[in-house]
Amino acid sequence: MDDGTIVVPRLIERKRDGGALAPAEWRALIAAYVADRVPDYQMAALAMAVVFRGLSEEELVALTAAMRTSGDQFHLEDLRVAGIGPMARVDKHSIGGVGDKTSLLLAPMLACLGVAVPMISGRGLGHTGGTLDKLEAIPGFNTRLSLAAARRQLERIGVVMVGQTPELVPADRKLYALRDVTGTVESIPLIAASIMSKKLAESLTGLVLDIKTGSGAFIQDPAQSLVLGQTMIGLGEASGCRTIALCTAMDRPLGSACGNALEVREAIAGLRGGGPADLMEVTFALGADMLVAAGITADRAVARGAVEGVIRSGAALDRFRLMVEAQGGDPRAVDDPERLPRAPVSRPVTTASAGVVVAVPPRPIGHAIVSLGGGRMQADQAVDWSVGVELSCVPGQRVAAGDRLATVHARTEADAASAVAAIGRAIIIGERAAPLALISHRITREGIDVLT
Amino acid sequence: MDDGTIVVPRLIERKRDGGALAPAEWRALIAAYVADRVPDYQMAALAMAVVFRGLSEEELVALTAAMRTSGDQFHLEDLRVAGIGPMARVDKHSIGGVGDKTSLLLAPMLACLGVAVPMISGRGLGHTGGTLDKLEAIPGFNTRLSLAAARRQLERIGVVMVGQTPELVPADRKLYALRDVTGTVESIPLIAASIMSKKLAESLTGLVLDIKTGSGAFIQDPAQSLVLGQTMIGLGEASGCRTIALCTAMDRPLGSACGNALEVREAIAGLRGGGPADLMEVTFALGADMLVAAGITADRAVARGAVEGVIRSGAALDRFRLMVEAQGGDPRAVDDPERLPRAPVSRPVTTASAGVVVAVPPRPIGHAIVSLGGGRMQADQAVDWSVGVELSCVPGQRVAAGDRLATVHARTEADAASAVAAIGRAIIIGERAAPLALISHRITREGIDVLT
Repeated sequence: MDDGTIVVPRLIERKRDGGALAPAEWRALIAAYVADRVPDYQMAALAMAVVFRGLSEEELVALTAAMRTSGDQFHLEDLRVAGIGPMARVDKHSIGGVGDKTSLLLAPMLACLGVAVPMISGRGLGHTGGTLDKLEAIPGFNTRLSLAAARRQLERIGVVMVGQTPELVPADRKLYALRDVTGTVESIPLIAASIMSKKLAESLTGLVLDIKTGSGAFIQDPAQSLVLGQTMIGLGEASGCRTIALCTAMDRPLGSACGNALEVREAIAGLRGGGPADLMEVTFALGADMLVAAGITADRAVARGAVEGVIRSGAALDRFRLMVEAQGGDPRAVDDPERLPRAPVSRPVTTASAGVVVAVPPRPIGHAIVSLGGGRMQADQAVDWSVGVELSCVPGQRVAAGDRLATVHARTEADAASAVAAIGRAIIIGERAAPLALISHRITREGIDVLT
Repeated sequence: MDDGTIVVPRLIERKRDGGALAPAEWRALIAAYVADRVPDYQMAALAMAVVFRGLSEEELVALTAAMRTSGDQFHLEDLRVAGIGPMARVDKHSIGGVGDKTSLLLAPMLACLGVAVPMISGRGLGHTGGTLDKLEAIPGFNTRLSLAAARRQLERIGVVMVGQTPELVPADRKLYALRDVTGTVESIPLIAASIMSKKLAESLTGLVLDIKTGSGAFIQDPAQSLVLGQTMIGLGEASGCRTIALCTAMDRPLGSACGNALEVREAIAGLRGGGPADLMEVTFALGADMLVAAGITADRAVARGAVEGVIRSGAALDRFRLMVEAQGGDPRAVDDPERLPRAPVSRPVTTASAGVVVAVPPRPIGHAIVSLGGGRMQADQAVDWSVGVELSCVPGQRVAAGDRLATVHARTEADAASAVAAIGRAIIIGERAAPLALISHRITREGIDVLT
């Protein structure tokens, strides 16, 4: 296309040859792409050139802003919750993993602490789960709210957990679908622009990123994880959104429950103060930094005390129940988990040999859940919320022959048998385990702190 | 697409990461692309990955073969000319330039020397001219023959000059159009595959490449020109086609005439033995190597004598006239150039200052011809054969103030005035000229000879 301002082949050639596009060129390009005036084949060639050449800081900021403003935005600058405000607005974003249900705890927790949580989440794809699928395991829970309805709920109870509307950041939806089929997903600047354009469209004042590391993470190279974190923090801070990242372990699932309804159960147990230690530790660390990012306190110990407090007091559980009810879900499921979907067949995975649990790799467990019907390989697949895997072991644990390592929850005996076999193969028993540190790095605009 | 044999995003990722596609994968990919089962956006991303990663020798041969066999081929293996045969089949291909009319001489010349010349040419685009446009300046000349009709003419007179049919190498037509708008033209392996897939589809036994160097050439880096030459020679020889390349100067136009009908006039003068010295030298050098590539003789001096002989004897001119008539053109135009289109307005370009002609740059001259209506910037534009530029100077020549440098032939006074101004600005008068050697390198499967 050539609308008098940009000639796309010249822009592609410039990027290909190591040059930079001007901010106005990124704006014009993204606007034209969303309006279908730039064809997919030109955007695919440009994306591949970006994979090789990267983006300058100025280009990255311009691209992210152009994507963020490509459709509606979730304008909350004047938000008042229960008549009080305007107030800080924070969110947490995870790069994806298996068993990661921290969002279900954090959103109500932070809402109890005087900040608004306008959380827009995604669905599971491939081996990773998604918050929307977990929420929908609660009978009746509606994640498809309009921005106006989401805002009304925020004004009332300070928290809403919804899916992206079609009007929000359409450039990212279109570009991500294209990147997915053109080998151009693996680009730090394109990943950062994709995530941050969506998060910044929520008009946040603070954001905490959970960057997963290890074999089950989207990015498996630890150095690249740090670069991604720094890149996203730069984008957040450039837009006036205080952004903090924690690097957390995804060489094993987080917590014990993997699978949508199972994870809701475990999240509710966590809201009652009884979640697995690793889940609670990551939740408290992320929650404390959400409070710091919100500007409520700069003292992380104080923040940690506050987020632990809303669990201890039961306030977070109450807020969760309120949110479930507000979004059409059955609030009785919060107090009686038997009201959540439960798979008819449960079968144990046991170990034939004694030793130490060396590895509980997230990818094969995630893929087993997909095979059970609890995840999806294509974006349009339906999921069965009831199925999944409950782990009974963690890396480093000593086991005897015959010990239970996990429990498979399936629709049929045949499904259970193949998942039992797959998980039995995946969990490695040996002599010594060297799991990653649960939380290895904290990244802020000031730099990287090694936490181990 | 995923037809059970290839999953295109995985192929793109492999190439992106520096790996190679197997020959069977290139075959399946090109077949699926021509059948519209691989979308343009995936091919564009792959092409950009090839721009950065290149192709292995095995990949290049496989891609070229896959493109060559993507549609009909010009099968001539059993060709007999005037009842004699099967015989050698040679062609010449130029990477493009301004004023390059050697094909018009070489095709009939070689046909006089016992080889068949099934020449499939292209049209001008941008600053470069095209053989088909030049031929069509001859009233009635038809370049749109079917392969069957072209073969019948070859059998009768040993030479045919036509355009590519839609059935021939459709993969290249589709891929080239895509590369043209996605910044993926500038790739030595993709350029080589594009050219050689078309030439090898003519079932040649010999091919001579004219690789232009200098400011007016498609590839301006001399080292890259040599790499391109070697790459194409490798592809030709891998298919059993003896391939030789000459690097010739395109820092100035070849000959004096630039513009379709003007170039036909100059080509006819050349066939009569009266062409400009540079045009005749390049023509004889290319012609001698066509005879070597055909296997008629290995002795270039003998070959040179033979090609000079068919000019001296008038045999080449006779064969040209025969070809014009065979393809519906007016044979009287060959002997009476006044029957060729002539522009109504002719205006001189003169120099205001005395000195040495430093540069006669082809690009601005080519663009002036486009502005006069004699070329095209888009593939679907019509051209006016009559317009053009006749040069009266060559680099290194001493000129006095007021001397004529060139003559512009235009449709209107206004067109002439702006072309006169453009060419006056383009031709540089100064103190010292350093033009490129007319023929700088000869490349064969044995290596590169420096000729200067």
